[in-house]
Amino acid sequence: MRIIVVGATGDIGQTACRELGQRHDLITAGRSGGDYQVDVSDLTSVEALYRSVGAFDAVVSCAGDASFVPLADMDQAAFMVGLQQKVMGQVNLVLAGMKVISDGGSFTLTSGVLDRDPIRRGTNAATANGALAGFVKSAAIELPRGLRINVVSPGMLDISAPRYGALFAGHKPVASDDVGRAYAKCVEGALTGQVMIVA
Amino acid sequence: MRIIVVGATGDIGQTACRELGQRHDLITAGRSGGDYQVDVSDLTSVEALYRSVGAFDAVVSCAGDASFVPLADMDQAAFMVGLQQKVMGQVNLVLAGMKVISDGGSFTLTSGVLDRDPIRRGTNAATANGALAGFVKSAAIELPRGLRINVVSPGMLDISAPRYGALFAGHKPVASDDVGRAYAKCVEGALTGQVMIVA
Repeated sequence: MRIIVVGATGDIGQTACRELGQRHDLITAGRSGGDYQVDVSDLTSVEALYRSVGAFDAVVSCAGDASFVPLADMDQAAFMVGLQQKVMGQVNLVLAGMKVISDGGSFTLTSGVLDRDPIRRGTNAATANGALAGFVKSAAIELPRGLRINVVSPGMLDISAPRYGALFAGHKPVASDDVGRAYAKCVEGALTGQVMIVA
Repeated sequence: MRIIVVGATGDIGQTACRELGQRHDLITAGRSGGDYQVDVSDLTSVEALYRSVGAFDAVVSCAGDASFVPLADMDQAAFMVGLQQKVMGQVNLVLAGMKVISDGGSFTLTSGVLDRDPIRRGTNAATANGALAGFVKSAAIELPRGLRINVVSPGMLDISAPRYGALFAGHKPVASDDVGRAYAKCVEGALTGQVMIVA
């Protein structure tokens, strides 16, 4: 398959690429890194990405920021980061992509553990994660042409623990290989409308 | 208790007011109706509302629009309605309110059935509903001073069926009285971080 991976340079993106790259042709895209540059929070930028790439069979999105700020210090601008980037950004990849992706193609988005196992400072990310779960469950029944959509919801990755372990106190790191497998299951399998938890 | 009800004129808001008004002092607010006008999508407007109202013990939010548009016709502006109004709007009530509400006070937000039982045209609302579930679960552990937060997730109300029944094909209408009770349970009870499903 020809697969566009957005946000390929982060820990999760690299993990997805290592697994999928064994069997597929990957095109990478990101805000600054990758084969193509894209601002996922802007639908016109996403449309331009797809025009540049040409034909493709799957999109894997590991993109999307959120604000890690104590709730008491959160303002509207900080909260909108998660809604605009992690939610709208990944949704834009679907809204534009569903018009041009191959028949039977798939979208695999990325959320995370914080809506089911919250931490301090994690409320913006938890909100975005919940939004993505609602989105894929509903979008799955609206997508045409046998298109599929799922979201991978990994815990903190083992390779991320050195940087994020203090924030995720007591969270058991998940094996990167297992996270990679979740993307393979979504892209190469037949599921749709699922939150693929990697715990 | 002195309770601010935002979005009091809609079907759900009226239902919440009928139940809570039996035992509490209600202050109503809305975009155009109610005792006070507020644009919940603007944090400064919400802050102004709280300054005008003075002391209060609970906030019940039945506010927040979403776009009911087929996914294939959805653009970024339409999708942002749900994120800006139904999600950010209700979150703004908490961000500003947590600084001024009475100790031990509560926030009760409103989502809906569409993230667990999706319908055509419902993806924007499903996304907002999921976001609110993630938000309350996480915000509950970050709120100070014994503050509580929950979200009521009702199915289509019996009183809304004449208008929305065709959109919600096959959905069993839920009794308005049961929806009212859910708001009472959230406001007068001790739960926090819960999605209160009314099915």
